[in-house]
Amino acid sequence: MRILVLGGDGYIGWPTSLYLSQKGHTILIVDSLVRRYFDLELGTKSLLPIIPTKKRIHRWQKISGKKIDFRFGDITDYSFINHVIKDFSPECIIHFGEQRSAPYSMIDRNHAVYTQVNNITGTLNILYAIRKNTPDAHLVKLGTLGEYGTPNIDIEEGFLEVTHKGRKDLLPYPKQPNSFYHLSKVHDSHNIMFACKVWDIAATDLHQGVVYGAETEETKLDPLLATRFDYDHIFGTVLNRFCVEAVLGMPLTIYGEGGQTRGFLDIRDTIACIEIALNTPAKKGEYRVFNQFTEQFSVLQLAKLVQKVGHKLNLDVKIQHIINPRIEKEKHYYKAKNTKLISLGLKPHYLSDTLLTSLMNIVKTNIKHVDKNTISPKILWK
Amino acid sequence: MRILVLGGDGYIGWPTSLYLSQKGHTILIVDSLVRRYFDLELGTKSLLPIIPTKKRIHRWQKISGKKIDFRFGDITDYSFINHVIKDFSPECIIHFGEQRSAPYSMIDRNHAVYTQVNNITGTLNILYAIRKNTPDAHLVKLGTLGEYGTPNIDIEEGFLEVTHKGRKDLLPYPKQPNSFYHLSKVHDSHNIMFACKVWDIAATDLHQGVVYGAETEETKLDPLLATRFDYDHIFGTVLNRFCVEAVLGMPLTIYGEGGQTRGFLDIRDTIACIEIALNTPAKKGEYRVFNQFTEQFSVLQLAKLVQKVGHKLNLDVKIQHIINPRIEKEKHYYKAKNTKLISLGLKPHYLSDTLLTSLMNIVKTNIKHVDKNTISPKILWK
Repeated sequence: MRILVLGGDGYIGWPTSLYLSQKGHTILIVDSLVRRYFDLELGTKSLLPIIPTKKRIHRWQKISGKKIDFRFGDITDYSFINHVIKDFSPECIIHFGEQRSAPYSMIDRNHAVYTQVNNITGTLNILYAIRKNTPDAHLVKLGTLGEYGTPNIDIEEGFLEVTHKGRKDLLPYPKQPNSFYHLSKVHDSHNIMFACKVWDIAATDLHQGVVYGAETEETKLDPLLATRFDYDHIFGTVLNRFCVEAVLGMPLTIYGEGGQTRGFLDIRDTIACIEIALNTPAKKGEYRVFNQFTEQFSVLQLAKLVQKVGHKLNLDVKIQHIINPRIEKEKHYYKAKNTKLISLGLKPHYLSDTLLTSLMNIVKTNIKHVDKNTISPKILWK
Repeated sequence: MRILVLGGDGYIGWPTSLYLSQKGHTILIVDSLVRRYFDLELGTKSLLPIIPTKKRIHRWQKISGKKIDFRFGDITDYSFINHVIKDFSPECIIHFGEQRSAPYSMIDRNHAVYTQVNNITGTLNILYAIRKNTPDAHLVKLGTLGEYGTPNIDIEEGFLEVTHKGRKDLLPYPKQPNSFYHLSKVHDSHNIMFACKVWDIAATDLHQGVVYGAETEETKLDPLLATRFDYDHIFGTVLNRFCVEAVLGMPLTIYGEGGQTRGFLDIRDTIACIEIALNTPAKKGEYRVFNQFTEQFSVLQLAKLVQKVGHKLNLDVKIQHIINPRIEKEKHYYKAKNTKLISLGLKPHYLSDTLLTSLMNIVKTNIKHVDKNTISPKILWK
């Protein structure tokens, strides 16, 4: 299959590209490298060193014998992405090409507006370019489970059957996102749903949970194929951050009570989910949502898991509650459905002591790269 | 009250400003005049001639003895609007300052992206400027009833009580907008709801129906105080268009079956609703939605009303069904609630033969200004 990977240089985009290349697909990566640029802006850095894009692609070719193509450019530039899609004529477009950090979007007005304008414009451009050049292409869009927020009822997959005053309808699930970033994904979802209806586009919107893990079969083949490992307060996700804190001998910092519950998944499962979406595509005109996560944890549960494994590794791991920089419920009902991907064959890698041990060992090996000053939260919602 | 009217030069913004000025409020209009610029772009024109902004303000001062201030500028320019809000320190901000045409947003990619980026950025800027300068100011935002689409259940005012698998919650009403313009309003609503929650902003989101009518008590005082009357296929609304077609002896053109049902209201009621919102403001941190319309009509019903009144005026009015340029249901359930504004004291001007007669007489008087070529729809959704 000819697959265009937008944002194919990023944390998930890169290992997804390697995996699909390994499987024999023709891969074209498009990336503006703005994620690397954010590191320059913020003074942050991946714990695992990542090499320049062209070099890692070259390395992949040496190791696997497979070629991945790369076009540098920004999907908010329509003339660029329109030409790329016209020339490459993808059968599937996997869209990771967005600003993906909630704290980044909350830095200030500039970052909020940037996040929304960037994400919305990029996605609208993709929809218009599909309509014009490849109306049969399948759009696989990375959304977020955070679009739903934390309602007091079960979270369904994209749609909710409502009975109201004796009448029934299947309606888009109400969204209550909690940052300007999460809002941008909700805006995208509404835009894509509309485009599917009016232009017969086929789209799968993956409402993804928090991804953890540092390695896949492909990235493990060579240190130069590593993907990013972010642990800072802006782009780092909670489990990575806990592992770094544990290895450094710092207390695991929980924002507030720690009852905040979310869906999580292993990066290898993310890639498996994307492959499932590719292989059983949405129909033309169909907008479908898969909730993409394998397990639910509260932040406190995760901290305790890291603490337990830390103790086995002879680390003295403490847990500390700090003031929550975000405005969010710290104790709430949370039950999200995730049966669609499972029923299509997903075999989850559940979070195990083995994985946590391997994560902490990766941190240990790279401990000299850690910048302690980038860990504690400095961006306030209020 | 110090009231900032964003988009105060427009169809509704102008008569709202006059009315509130007449009532003794201190009015500052901010407008980029982009609506007048769209006319240059599209070759369209208000049927009632409108004079330059500074002149109509001057005229108002002559006639009423009241002063309205005006600042030319674009709210997507944060440094501009931030200074305006800081200097004027409004107690209330009425936000009409958005691109408001569905067909305009569907012209092509440029117009879709412009509409969404313009509307979202402007609204985000207002929210940040309120947060920084006037955290107690009441934001009165013009949304649209079109945010809801046409669900098969009753439309409530902003929120829906859902019982699901034995649990209950009050959730944002699911939105199914039908153009990139309507989508931009949904995006705004989500952004404003979030800002109210995290920054304690007070906001009223008026989900307004289709407005008709050409005159208010204030605009009638002098022909130079007239507000716009749009009848073209891009900015004209259906009732205005029918009146123009009737007077010209053209058939009333119904898009498709004509079962499309929407909420409608008289422009005088729009202004009354805004005054109600001003006088009973949202509380700090509250995001509330009022459905702002007084009656529901299908397009076919409206056509028949115009036909009936046309016959009384000795006009030979025919009805013609043409291919629908939009993708929308042409026959559907529609029942929207509008009790909040009524319970706060709104006394509706229902659509009457008298009003239709007066509209058609306005058209007659200005018949020489009509450009027939701008009436039939040329912008296709598909």
